[in-house]
Amino acid sequence: MIEIFENIKFGKNGLIPAVIQDEKSKKALTLCYMNKKALEKTLKTGKVYVYRRSKGRVMMKGETSGCVQRVRSVCIDCEGNSLLVKVEQERAACHEGYFSCYFRKMDKKGRLKTIEKRIFDPKKVYRVLSE
Amino acid sequence: MIEIFENIKFGKNGLIPAVIQDEKSKKALTLCYMNKKALEKTLKTGKVYVYRRSKGRVMMKGETSGCVQRVRSVCIDCEGNSLLVKVEQERAACHEGYFSCYFRKMDKKGRLKTIEKRIFDPKKVYRVLSE
Repeated sequence: MIEIFENIKFGKNGLIPAVIQDEKSKKALTLCYMNKKALEKTLKTGKVYVYRRSKGRVMMKGETSGCVQRVRSVCIDCEGNSLLVKVEQERAACHEGYFSCYFRKMDKKGRLKTIEKRIFDPKKVYRVLSE
Repeated sequence: MIEIFENIKFGKNGLIPAVIQDEKSKKALTLCYMNKKALEKTLKTGKVYVYRRSKGRVMMKGETSGCVQRVRSVCIDCEGNSLLVKVEQERAACHEGYFSCYFRKMDKKGRLKTIEKRIFDPKKVYRVLSE
């Protein structure tokens, strides 16, 4: 289906990193990884699919939590080795319950401080997984 | 100098990816890689330092072009394996002369189209390198 994938440099592991940004708030949400199949499904379905390294398979973002990401645009960087995917984020992107995965700020000494408020309780959302 | 780096998961190659975002426009500018030294220098100096994989060394972003990135904040993701660095971008982030490296949009068939205007002519800015 995809005609021109030769512009895209998938890494040695077959993956390309994709920055996910919420189109409305412009907040950077997360960095995920796509293989060719995940990118094809993302472009075809209009929802973000990622290659989940810990599970070794392609999954739709929000498959468990319902927090799907509807694709608004996909851009590629000058080198062809990373993507920027602008999305409409359902509820929250982070499995810890925050809108963005970047909810901890680092000071000059590397100490971390949480700067965002939780949107949902991950124990409730992912309860089905641990039962 | 850095006290708490144990929260940060540098990859097997010693690098962590860092999403660079312009604080004012909120545009995602580029994805770069930092090793421990680059991150320390970034936090200490307030300017973005990266590990340039093609050159095998730590460099200040904009060292050649003058297009430095002044750090406004550094956040870390929930997993500790990527960073978000908000910056004040001098002129343009991309070595091709665009404000953002993500100046090409992909359609559903993977075809690319340039969607941004060039800010500078890279041949003039990097002339010193090729002479």
